Amino acid sequence: MASATTTKTGQPFDREVLDSLLKRTGFYMPSFEIYGGEKGLFDYGPPLTALQSNFVDLWRKHFVLREKMLEVDTTIITPEPVFITSGHVAKFADFMSKDPKTGEIFRTDHLIKQVLGARLKADQDARGQTIEVEKPDEAQKKKKIKDVKIEKLDDAVAQEYHETLAKLDNYDGDGFNELIKKFEIKGPTSGVDLDPPKPFNLMFQTYIGPSADKPNGYLRPETAQGQFLNFQKLLEFNKQKMPFASASIGKSFRNEISPRQGLLRVREFLMAEIEHYVDPESGKKHDKFDDVKDVELTLLNRHTQLAGSEKTEVMTIGDAVAKKVVDNETLGYFIVRIQDFLLKLGIDKTKLRFRQHMANEMAHYAADCWDAELYGSYGWIECVGCADRSAYDLTVHMRKTGAPLVVRENLSEPKKFQEYQIDLNKKKLGPKFRKDAKAVEAAVEGLSQDLREKLSLELKDSGKITIDTPGLGSGKTELDKDLVTIEQREVIQHVREYTPNVIEPSFGIGRILYHLLEHVFWTRQNTDPKDAEPSARNVLSLPPLIAPIKVLLVPLSSHPDFKPFLRSLTTMLDELDITNSIDDSSASIGKRYSRNDELGTPFGITVDFQTVKDKTITLRERDSTKQVRASQEDICQAIEALVKGRETWGKVQSRLPEFTSQEVD
Amino acid sequence: MASATTTKTGQPFDREVLDSLLKRTGFYMPSFEIYGGEKGLFDYGPPLTALQSNFVDLWRKHFVLREKMLEVDTTIITPEPVFITSGHVAKFADFMSKDPKTGEIFRTDHLIKQVLGARLKADQDARGQTIEVEKPDEAQKKKKIKDVKIEKLDDAVAQEYHETLAKLDNYDGDGFNELIKKFEIKGPTSGVDLDPPKPFNLMFQTYIGPSADKPNGYLRPETAQGQFLNFQKLLEFNKQKMPFASASIGKSFRNEISPRQGLLRVREFLMAEIEHYVDPESGKKHDKFDDVKDVELTLLNRHTQLAGSEKTEVMTIGDAVAKKVVDNETLGYFIVRIQDFLLKLGIDKTKLRFRQHMANEMAHYAADCWDAELYGSYGWIECVGCADRSAYDLTVHMRKTGAPLVVRENLSEPKKFQEYQIDLNKKKLGPKFRKDAKAVEAAVEGLSQDLREKLSLELKDSGKITIDTPGLGSGKTELDKDLVTIEQREVIQHVREYTPNVIEPSFGIGRILYHLLEHVFWTRQNTDPKDAEPSARNVLSLPPLIAPIKVLLVPLSSHPDFKPFLRSLTTMLDELDITNSIDDSSASIGKRYSRNDELGTPFGITVDFQTVKDKTITLRERDSTKQVRASQEDICQAIEALVKGRETWGKVQSRLPEFTSQEVD
Repeated sequence: MASATTTKTGQPFDREVLDSLLKRTGFYMPSFEIYGGEKGLFDYGPPLTALQSNFVDLWRKHFVLREKMLEVDTTIITPEPVFITSGHVAKFADFMSKDPKTGEIFRTDHLIKQVLGARLKADQDARGQTIEVEKPDEAQKKKKIKDVKIEKLDDAVAQEYHETLAKLDNYDGDGFNELIKKFEIKGPTSGVDLDPPKPFNLMFQTYIGPSADKPNGYLRPETAQGQFLNFQKLLEFNKQKMPFASASIGKSFRNEISPRQGLLRVREFLMAEIEHYVDPESGKKHDKFDDVKDVELTLLNRHTQLAGSEKTEVMTIGDAVAKKVVDNETLGYFIVRIQDFLLKLGIDKTKLRFRQHMANEMAHYAADCWDAELYGSYGWIECVGCADRSAYDLTVHMRKTGAPLVVRENLSEPKKFQEYQIDLNKKKLGPKFRKDAKAVEAAVEGLSQDLREKLSLELKDSGKITIDTPGLGSGKTELDKDLVTIEQREVIQHVREYTPNVIEPSFGIGRILYHLLEHVFWTRQNTDPKDAEPSARNVLSLPPLIAPIKVLLVPLSSHPDFKPFLRSLTTMLDELDITNSIDDSSASIGKRYSRNDELGTPFGITVDFQTVKDKTITLRERDSTKQVRASQEDICQAIEALVKGRETWGKVQSRLPEFTSQEVD
Repeated sequence: MASATTTKTGQPFDREVLDSLLKRTGFYMPSFEIYGGEKGLFDYGPPLTALQSNFVDLWRKHFVLREKMLEVDTTIITPEPVFITSGHVAKFADFMSKDPKTGEIFRTDHLIKQVLGARLKADQDARGQTIEVEKPDEAQKKKKIKDVKIEKLDDAVAQEYHETLAKLDNYDGDGFNELIKKFEIKGPTSGVDLDPPKPFNLMFQTYIGPSADKPNGYLRPETAQGQFLNFQKLLEFNKQKMPFASASIGKSFRNEISPRQGLLRVREFLMAEIEHYVDPESGKKHDKFDDVKDVELTLLNRHTQLAGSEKTEVMTIGDAVAKKVVDNETLGYFIVRIQDFLLKLGIDKTKLRFRQHMANEMAHYAADCWDAELYGSYGWIECVGCADRSAYDLTVHMRKTGAPLVVRENLSEPKKFQEYQIDLNKKKLGPKFRKDAKAVEAAVEGLSQDLREKLSLELKDSGKITIDTPGLGSGKTELDKDLVTIEQREVIQHVREYTPNVIEPSFGIGRILYHLLEHVFWTRQNTDPKDAEPSARNVLSLPPLIAPIKVLLVPLSSHPDFKPFLRSLTTMLDELDITNSIDDSSASIGKRYSRNDELGTPFGITVDFQTVKDKTITLRERDSTKQVRASQEDICQAIEALVKGRETWGKVQSRLPEFTSQEVD
């Protein structure tokens, strides 16, 4: 909803200025633009590609290396059965509404939100108040939308609109249909009745192999399933030690009904996901929790939201876990690590909050979930999810395939207890169920003790039992006493077997990068007295660690004496793996620097006539525009220290001689 | 064909041993294995994922950073029109043959190759000679193939088989069908006649957006097109300077008819591609060619191959270009850079050659093409292509879309010449051709001077002309004199406009990594006198620069006094961004080291009781198994220098005290 935001220097933020800067300087462009473009697909140009690869590098160091995670690279193409089991085929859908006259297709919830939002806005205008509504993006603006009359609403109606918008996530197709009828929502350009909402699965379909005559696979919508399917191998690789985490960085895909908001809602995106496996009986403690317990976080918990407020609370993670605001230490530890990472990246701390999912937002299996939300011109946007997925995924895949996606732990002291055990007559089971026998067996194994007790009575009474076997025939399977016996026996357990729970931090890289660009963008007033009219110049204050290009090399002019210095400097920097570029165009030094301030290049080196004399060069810092002058070696060394975060610019400035000549414009 | 290969220590290479090592240690695994697997899809486990990410990092430094290339990240999902223009929809296909009885589908050329190969083998066996045939991989072995009788062939027939195999790449569907009839090739398991070969397009299809009722997009089979479509923007980003290169690293997809050979022929793979744009009139000179001209390469040129030989020739690239063996300097420069990169990676130089494509192998537009081929247990395999794609791609996309994918260069001196110019009456053209008008215009603009001269006569004679407009209606379009005039005029040109040519080095990352693993694999005889029977131990001698984990930390035992040292060492190494892992299992130190030799970990640190006394630790090098002992700081510093390639193990050994205690087994 909200959209007013300011730059780091307190200026009002103007999205159109940043967007035109990003497109002009090649940060990103609509894919296939010369073919008319394709909605929801964007290409990253050189600056954003470099920024993204620095993001990935930092992410790997911050998470995979430091936490000794097991990174895997699993395939994007996934056969259908996997997503049937995970529930994606049945449930990973949005509702769409078709306008029968124009053929336009709308995402139903977005349409309702837009229409009710516009009516509320009109109501407020009529009352002479202002209200912030989501700013339409370029694509939406181009569509001609029927004007909403400036019209006052009944108080009760306005109240109902507000309440509906607050719980829009809870509706299904029928619910949406009722809302559309009740609120008389029509095709926005045609004014006619819309077709009833239909679910549209968001996974891209494909055909695997030469003999497929209908789609038999999908492009994954998340990397998680590929990690879960390899759980056994990963546990083995980790020498059976728990807890541990796997991680994956890769492209995922969602066939959005109506992509919008530029880089925020796209059909193809890079994500980085961690699946951290814990023993559910450990209380989900984390052995490094003590190191982070005093870190403060800005939290928006579910109770506050239920009360209709967005008031955040600053709290240490130690307190949050102690007070059960955050469910457990492991979840808390990862929330802190996510915050650390985002701040290292250059995210503005005042534009970061952690919002807890409300019960109705979470998947039914999730135990707790906190999103890192970043604030920008589209309001608060979820950029990192951190969910406790409980044992859901491993359980369903194990049940379906029979693969033991479990941990076996030797008990120091054997446990004795009574247990209902089910014996299957496998000689008869095989011939009767053939290829389904394994699934029946897995279903039986998955039965709880309570159910087993009930079934043992059923078997005694009727000579047969009926069990749930989802996906097999009618979903129910009957087993008679020839096939099955149930008995209570004493068990002595030497090995404990359990399905681990999963804590999943999941990063949408494009969304984070876009917000980062909003957070580091500002404009500098040009105060050069020689300029007729002072102009504003754009700056992206990206931290040196992740800036696409670290150093711009600028010769004063095209004088041939400067060339050997440029060559030796670029070699020196290349050997330190410090990205650099040369701008030897005829533009003034000031213009060249300001072009690179726009690209977020933190440092600039000038080669001038004094360089030819005494081999010194100047080093300019982007944000302060201050300069120092020293030998090539000293400057390159300083840059290395700055880029690797071993030294600050303040420190460099204090130990190297200042250079005060004006930037020549 | 060939398959006998040896390890770097001269032992016979056994693929099954390496393969079982790689699977056991989690380098890779079939995707969706617990669901029964999916052919041609593999997941990379932690060691191979780390190796791959180190590959990408090195590639970026070696190419993108050093050569100041413009890296872009374009989308995988591609709308159909792009691949219609590029020719992929029409031509990117293999032929498949279906067995009508069993329903099996074979890639036609592979089937012919396999059957004729087997017959030739049987012939040789009957003659008491041996011949090397491609070793079937696991998947193929499992299929029951009808035994080939050991039967002598007529000399003429054998000769014909050999000739057919040598030119198998030249056949189309009808040609294959004739071969199948002529040589009486039947379904290999059924013995019945096969259905006639049908083309099968290798691109995965998908549906973009909610309103698609038939496939309207593809997963890209290469990253190149995404780069070409952005040419204008990239040229602008490069401030209109030529030559320059774009680069891209990303997943591509080919829906192989019958994937095989493990990681070599897969349906989803990571590739790294460079598109280097040059002025065709520059003679394709390269300004750094002089730096590399003395580098020697092992070349197999097309003339040698035409003469039926595989004899390579060692030659400097300077000579090769001078003698026109390699077409031009730019192509030559990249061949050298590719070799440099592969050697840095750890590829065995004796198992690397550059093979020139024969005329019939190349796409019709290609000017020259050299593959870097790596030798291994599957014979010589293409792993990097280096093609001169001429101006083909930019030209077809420009012709289709009208986007100016050209370079405009200001001429220092204007040029005067006579030219046939075609004027179109746009007022009539628009109404007549509507949405196709742009394509007609582009087709007219693309006409050569020779053709224009002919057409001017045609227009004079008949009052109309007919031009080729591929993809529009019948493919021909008629324009009468109301619409078109053609005149010869004098032109003064101030700006030269040209379509650049493209040199394209293209890396198949999975194929290179697999060969690297074959090249660095060897077995060490265990000569420990305490061992009852000496056992062979596997080693992967991966260079420190790209080894997945650089250091293994091994405490002598689980004694609590060792813990603080492990903690401080891992922190110290983490801060240097040096990947490390701790093995504190109860296995002997020797066993633990040998487990890590298998993973290619180059260095090992032992913490023992002397560490507790004097804070020194030992450092072991994987290939020599030699050790040194020094302070923690000195050892960590040495590791950093070794990993970054600033120091050799020999140097470290000479300056730090040797440690000679046996590895305890």
